[in-house]
Amino acid sequence: MINISNSAASGKTVGARDNEAHQVTSTDTDFDDLETPALLLDEAKMMRNIDHLAARAKKLGVTLRPHMKTAKSIEVAAHMGQDKTDPITVSTLAEAEMFHAAGHTDILYAVGIAPQKLDRVRALRAKGCDLVVILDNVAQATAVAQAGVPAMIEIDSDGHRGGLEPDDPALIEVGRLLHDSGTLRGVMTHAGESYTVRGADAHAAFAEQERSAAVRSAETLRKAGLDCPVVSVGSTPTAYGARDLTGVTELRAGVYMFFDLVMAGIDVCTPDDIALSVLTTVIGHQPSKGWVLVDAGWMAMSRDRGTATQDVDQGYGMVCDAQGRVIPDLIMIGANQEHGIIAHRNGPEQPIPDLPVGRQLRILPNHACATAAQFDRYHVLPKGNGPRDIWHRFGGW
Amino acid sequence: MINISNSAASGKTVGARDNEAHQVTSTDTDFDDLETPALLLDEAKMMRNIDHLAARAKKLGVTLRPHMKTAKSIEVAAHMGQDKTDPITVSTLAEAEMFHAAGHTDILYAVGIAPQKLDRVRALRAKGCDLVVILDNVAQATAVAQAGVPAMIEIDSDGHRGGLEPDDPALIEVGRLLHDSGTLRGVMTHAGESYTVRGADAHAAFAEQERSAAVRSAETLRKAGLDCPVVSVGSTPTAYGARDLTGVTELRAGVYMFFDLVMAGIDVCTPDDIALSVLTTVIGHQPSKGWVLVDAGWMAMSRDRGTATQDVDQGYGMVCDAQGRVIPDLIMIGANQEHGIIAHRNGPEQPIPDLPVGRQLRILPNHACATAAQFDRYHVLPKGNGPRDIWHRFGGW
Repeated sequence: MINISNSAASGKTVGARDNEAHQVTSTDTDFDDLETPALLLDEAKMMRNIDHLAARAKKLGVTLRPHMKTAKSIEVAAHMGQDKTDPITVSTLAEAEMFHAAGHTDILYAVGIAPQKLDRVRALRAKGCDLVVILDNVAQATAVAQAGVPAMIEIDSDGHRGGLEPDDPALIEVGRLLHDSGTLRGVMTHAGESYTVRGADAHAAFAEQERSAAVRSAETLRKAGLDCPVVSVGSTPTAYGARDLTGVTELRAGVYMFFDLVMAGIDVCTPDDIALSVLTTVIGHQPSKGWVLVDAGWMAMSRDRGTATQDVDQGYGMVCDAQGRVIPDLIMIGANQEHGIIAHRNGPEQPIPDLPVGRQLRILPNHACATAAQFDRYHVLPKGNGPRDIWHRFGGW
Repeated sequence: MINISNSAASGKTVGARDNEAHQVTSTDTDFDDLETPALLLDEAKMMRNIDHLAARAKKLGVTLRPHMKTAKSIEVAAHMGQDKTDPITVSTLAEAEMFHAAGHTDILYAVGIAPQKLDRVRALRAKGCDLVVILDNVAQATAVAQAGVPAMIEIDSDGHRGGLEPDDPALIEVGRLLHDSGTLRGVMTHAGESYTVRGADAHAAFAEQERSAAVRSAETLRKAGLDCPVVSVGSTPTAYGARDLTGVTELRAGVYMFFDLVMAGIDVCTPDDIALSVLTTVIGHQPSKGWVLVDAGWMAMSRDRGTATQDVDQGYGMVCDAQGRVIPDLIMIGANQEHGIIAHRNGPEQPIPDLPVGRQLRILPNHACATAAQFDRYHVLPKGNGPRDIWHRFGGW
């Protein structure tokens, strides 16, 4: 069981709707045909999120290269209003293969390449996919140069994980290895630390950190006589925070398509923007504790507790009725493999709505990438009033 | 990044092997044919674990009903030395359907039944599967009695999640609803809180709590004239801790087949007993921080941080060489979706072995159920010197 203090819970409002008196009636449920737990995707919200960032990128004068690691779905990509020749980013070679099989041709594999994977990269390139890898060291660059696979040099703009710092002498060494073999595409960076700060100004500062590190690295390479056509930056918070991307050519982001409570907790979105939720069914109660037990545990929600370190800890997720309306202060405070424990965030003395056995609820996830990965399909709530659709998603490597 | 203090790390030894001087040589790697990350299963360790608990159950005079929620694999079940008519436990109806399709006929679905799922239960029963459900309230009992599906009453022995306390008046009410419709099979309990305490004595105490609550509930029902043939208890810690199971008829446990760092952290096993590991490849370094970056992130390890609240925090897992030998004090201190950060648990000033780009390593997981769920297959290291096998596993609901 997580420990959620009252003080932590009082720090944030989650949209005007939350403050209205909320009635949960039995006629709210209209997913009787769905076995729970099930993953729901609200197409209208997804499209609003997608269109918003596409417009931002256009305004900032950069190419958007959406990261498909959150969605992992051909159908999601098909609904983005892109051409199949438009650029995408992936996190596994399995994604690259799946998206290429569906017609996508401009793919960045944005995890440092293991030399053992280069045969598989080359095989996909031989089929006509312009698959580009990333790297940050001489061992990788040597292997990539030998394999003749185009690569971006990863730059460390925030100490988050991999990448060379812009003033690291290895940058030119790696750049030259790639340049001399005709495989240097450019530089890329990702400020993963931007997830840990809240508010547009803080995200703008990280966006500038990304821009500055990437542009400075590109200039260092160019001064050394090495071509560096592509300067790529991005994360969802910095993509939303960026105010000026001078010198940058492309922007990457992924979780923005669906959004989640971690992004809401740092004010990149509101809970109302979250397109993804887990449908679950009430299976029991522990009245003395104020607990409602549901059939979505961590196998459905994932073990991601990304809001645990935020101003407001949302447990394993915020609870909504079956229509997706937030039930104020009701969260999943604990999860076993196939059991979720729902309770008022401020403890058992607080009143909660009557939620009888059999009632369906929706849970907004901490982390869309992690929760979606627990399912093999989206049940898509269409933009209009049409029938629900099923979009498949894939996993693996 | 997780915060792992030196004091927390010094509390525990992890088997004699760990204290030997450890050399990691490049000839250690012999999984060159495997794409990483990949899930490895050591069959000899698995069989040792399975045989050990089977012998314990025999000695305690109870039927073992293994929980297949960890393995979710027909092949694992086939290697357990059981008949297909021997009892198993499952955590989803998808598991029940998969195992029944493979010939298993005696299945307990050990998550409180949602009334909406009873049609699916009945369909499986109509095919000849003796599928039994569990419940703890009148609403469920009414639906189950009407559907004619046999059920066990869930008893709360430790306040962990669901179940009726043995002295709850609803026990007889629920029992009578089932009895009168001929659907009462017995009582069952699970002391999930036993995971939070360390040592055989503490687990023995929880085992006695399970036994006492289940037997007392069975006696209450019998005194009311209600049949209660089955008295079922279990969790891996209590199955290992139990010293006397008088009055109990069956024992359930699941994670014992593979074991994991959470179980090692409460002394139910040692790291050497852990049959499951994730094979990964080194993709880079941040030398100033003492970091080794690998291609297994939380998508491979899961987000489970079960050791975070134990005496020794193992991060996202303990690091072994490709042969499975623990590299002392090297753990995965952080994880992104497809990146793991490996470092010495006591910080960057501690020396670590040279682990060049391309080197394969194995990571022992916090929680076998959660890590295995991230993969669709086991690469099985056979007991003898034969070729590796692939065993499939399934997910979903």
